Amino acid sequence: MDVEIKPGERVDDLGRGGFRILQDPKCFCFGIDAVLLSWFSRVKSNEEVMDLCSGTGIVPILMRARYGAGRYTALELQEAMADMAARSVQMNGLGDSIQVVQGDVKTASARFGRGRVDVVTVNPPYRKAGNGKENPEKALALARHEIACTLEDVIREGAALLKPRGRFYLVHLPERLPEIMTTLTANGLTPERLQTAHSREDSPAAMVFVSAVKGGRNALQVEPPVVIYGPDGNYTEEIRRIYNE
Amino acid sequence: MDVEIKPGERVDDLGRGGFRILQDPKCFCFGIDAVLLSWFSRVKSNEEVMDLCSGTGIVPILMRARYGAGRYTALELQEAMADMAARSVQMNGLGDSIQVVQGDVKTASARFGRGRVDVVTVNPPYRKAGNGKENPEKALALARHEIACTLEDVIREGAALLKPRGRFYLVHLPERLPEIMTTLTANGLTPERLQTAHSREDSPAAMVFVSAVKGGRNALQVEPPVVIYGPDGNYTEEIRRIYNE
Repeated sequence: MDVEIKPGERVDDLGRGGFRILQDPKCFCFGIDAVLLSWFSRVKSNEEVMDLCSGTGIVPILMRARYGAGRYTALELQEAMADMAARSVQMNGLGDSIQVVQGDVKTASARFGRGRVDVVTVNPPYRKAGNGKENPEKALALARHEIACTLEDVIREGAALLKPRGRFYLVHLPERLPEIMTTLTANGLTPERLQTAHSREDSPAAMVFVSAVKGGRNALQVEPPVVIYGPDGNYTEEIRRIYNE
Repeated sequence: MDVEIKPGERVDDLGRGGFRILQDPKCFCFGIDAVLLSWFSRVKSNEEVMDLCSGTGIVPILMRARYGAGRYTALELQEAMADMAARSVQMNGLGDSIQVVQGDVKTASARFGRGRVDVVTVNPPYRKAGNGKENPEKALALARHEIACTLEDVIREGAALLKPRGRFYLVHLPERLPEIMTTLTANGLTPERLQTAHSREDSPAAMVFVSAVKGGRNALQVEPPVVIYGPDGNYTEEIRRIYNE
């Protein structure tokens, strides 16, 4: 479907089933963290999914492309981003399965109701406000720093939105892992899977992926890590498979 | 140095600088977890190290063999194990650097004083009491299940024993990681390094190694994982290097 493309925006091919996305480099372009989150997360047919801090809607679009399942709400604070996400959804003909909503994650459970969704996904701002240089572009600063919402906000609201046994999927920085574990636990979410992604086989983790279950009783499993680049500097087989499947 | 070898005991070569250890298969034989803990932990010359739940004293013996540094106290609850550890220390001529003490980890800080050691190491019982079948051999049951002490006990006492900025090194099951993170944090220990060990490259983690600093301010780093067996079923290069260095 043809949609309006505004100045500064570009259309990127997602390499999965012909799906495309609108992005504006001045706002935020999705990274491998969003791709890996969509691949780490699981959804079954007819499950209700809420993607918090959705940005361009990349995570629900990739999940829908991968699983062909789920009904998604993409919640995004910034008007311009939400508008771009809505046009990407339209461009991909996904209007029936993905709804984009502009709004604040901090009050999501009050707005959408408690205990209503099966799955929450979130690729939140990674860095504490005041920690490292903020981008002068407001849109980029909001996407990277905890200016508009904190880790505690997304976990608290995610937990509130989920049904009992609902699943929470998060990507974040490894250095925030202790806080992630304590905050999930404090909000009744039991960590169930943990996976790290490393730029190279011998480098420290660059990202962590955590899934947690509301009122879950299973023991945490730490999965084999994902390695992004091979010794030749190119994407590993595994990453190429994730991008193309 | 020659020492008494009691019925049922055997002498095993540690493959490092001629060091040996007494073990009794009916009590407890050290595993790769102890070897990797001794390699994950760090000690500088003249630092005071307390090894909790020390068993046969394997961790301080391996650390002394590897680093040639540190003054160690090996605290072990079971009389027979502490006696065996003391004879292993004697056999290796390490009486000047490793002291074996029989006693209860739950009251360690009351006995040895608060804020007195630079480093705490611990390879504690992994499984909650009542969780899985307990070994009918009492010594093995105590070593594997939290009968005589819990994770909370070893972290609380470890934190109390340490000086400010002192370092805590722990090996445990991946499934206990959320509890490890919350309990370390609650006791003023800041997780600083996390490493997982996997039997094979594509298998879930079998063990986690965590270091934490009393009052530490550094961000957690998740290190590249250790893989134990190669595709051929033999130890990987890395493990062979750890065992032999």
